[in-house]
Amino acid sequence: MEINRPDVVAEVTAAFERYEQALVNNDVATLDELFWQSPHTIRYGATENLYSYEAIAAFRASRPTGDLRRALRNTVITTYGSDFATANTEFRRTSSGKTGRQSQAWLRTPAGWRVVCAHVSLLGG
Amino acid sequence: MEINRPDVVAEVTAAFERYEQALVNNDVATLDELFWQSPHTIRYGATENLYSYEAIAAFRASRPTGDLRRALRNTVITTYGSDFATANTEFRRTSSGKTGRQSQAWLRTPAGWRVVCAHVSLLGG
Repeated sequence: MEINRPDVVAEVTAAFERYEQALVNNDVATLDELFWQSPHTIRYGATENLYSYEAIAAFRASRPTGDLRRALRNTVITTYGSDFATANTEFRRTSSGKTGRQSQAWLRTPAGWRVVCAHVSLLGG
Repeated sequence: MEINRPDVVAEVTAAFERYEQALVNNDVATLDELFWQSPHTIRYGATENLYSYEAIAAFRASRPTGDLRRALRNTVITTYGSDFATANTEFRRTSSGKTGRQSQAWLRTPAGWRVVCAHVSLLGG
């Protein structure tokens, strides 16, 4: 299995960056689009544990939007073969100054690259 | 791509349970064995961000071991085809009562199933 095949890394990086832009702009339609439409999809947020695409979409529709802008650092995207990837990044929220980490597992689906699991947490808070 | 092929789920579940037993017993050799020996391996811990197998092993060798025992709940293992899996679980540490979440991405390597990325965080603290 080839690690970090350049064309696969480019595809996942584009999907990751599209997700990030949607996140900081609270573009809920794109955020929903980029999560796997499955009951298996999981998102552990800073303060909540969400099981299933439906639960995640319901959270997006009603989440607080006051502190979404952030800067990333130490972003690492790794691809495994042609169909699976992980994306990990540290972040600092612009408004509050809070720092944290975001981990995602991405899967190539017939509809495109989708997040199958995500975990977001704050550090020291 | 087949999701949750029973034989693959059984393999990953066995690896996950082996990791959990090693964790609560601070069996560092097994913990090290089950992480991917790669500079790409990442572990976000409750209080630290570790990049590379070497950094993770160095942390294991010197970590505090006073509050490792824990009970799991809502464990979800999902497999994607034959070579990739995610394992997510909530936990409650027995001694301190602290609750948190653990996410892992697992890859089938020539040496066996290995954790390529992990993220552990506490909730509400």
